[in-house]
Amino acid sequence: MTKDMKERITDLVDEAKVAYVSSVDEKGYPMTKAMLSLQRDGLFTHYFSTHCSNRRTQQFLKNSKACIYFCKEDSFEGLMLNGNIEVMTDRDHKAMLWREGFEMYYPEGIETENYCVYKFTAHKANFYYGLSDFDFLLEDYENAGLS
Amino acid sequence: MTKDMKERITDLVDEAKVAYVSSVDEKGYPMTKAMLSLQRDGLFTHYFSTHCSNRRTQQFLKNSKACIYFCKEDSFEGLMLNGNIEVMTDRDHKAMLWREGFEMYYPEGIETENYCVYKFTAHKANFYYGLSDFDFLLEDYENAGLS
Repeated sequence: MTKDMKERITDLVDEAKVAYVSSVDEKGYPMTKAMLSLQRDGLFTHYFSTHCSNRRTQQFLKNSKACIYFCKEDSFEGLMLNGNIEVMTDRDHKAMLWREGFEMYYPEGIETENYCVYKFTAHKANFYYGLSDFDFLLEDYENAGLS
Repeated sequence: MTKDMKERITDLVDEAKVAYVSSVDEKGYPMTKAMLSLQRDGLFTHYFSTHCSNRRTQQFLKNSKACIYFCKEDSFEGLMLNGNIEVMTDRDHKAMLWREGFEMYYPEGIETENYCVYKFTAHKANFYYGLSDFDFLLEDYENAGLS
């Protein structure tokens, strides 16, 4: 991977307000929804906040296979990450993701029982830009531009 | 469904430049990519143009289960449609989807062997807006606002 491509990928993720998060339902159909892109740890680990009770959380508890996708619609650049989602309900993760205003969604604050965190960990990635597709792994991204 | 909700859904789809199209790969992982939203027939049938040779087309030939998702990031409205994708290679569908400038992707025009059309047909839908989720069927949408 070139240094330029690494920068494009980093910018795409940094500028994205939302990620498109996909699960697979009990009948084998993919399900996609936008979620706020709140926090990440490097390029391959991403965190999202949500309700424990919703349909998707129940799906991820049964089948952790997931995809998250970031897109710049204007330049038609897209980053797809494939991996798995763990549903975290411990206080540390819930506190880490908590943001001002979340009381609207979770009235009892960090302790809200129906509040949880998705920890997504990718095992591979694909970047689309300039009419081409590039598969890559975390080490390709981390070592990009190093001689 | 209220008439207002039907209008919101219609506007969302009409204004969307892209749809987020998801497949399921041979290992059971969801795969999401943005595709140009080119043409539809009502709310539950959508068409996309692509290459026959790409990974996703090969996936849909093996497993037609699909999701397409439209999103207004600013107002956080999202429409998810679940259904199946047929890969069409007949001349009629290829001519129907052809647009000016497609020679860039398919140099031999409509006859390009590597050009095909996805016909997506939904069997159910979910609309997210105002912090709520609504499941609906085609008849709910079509009959909305009728007394």
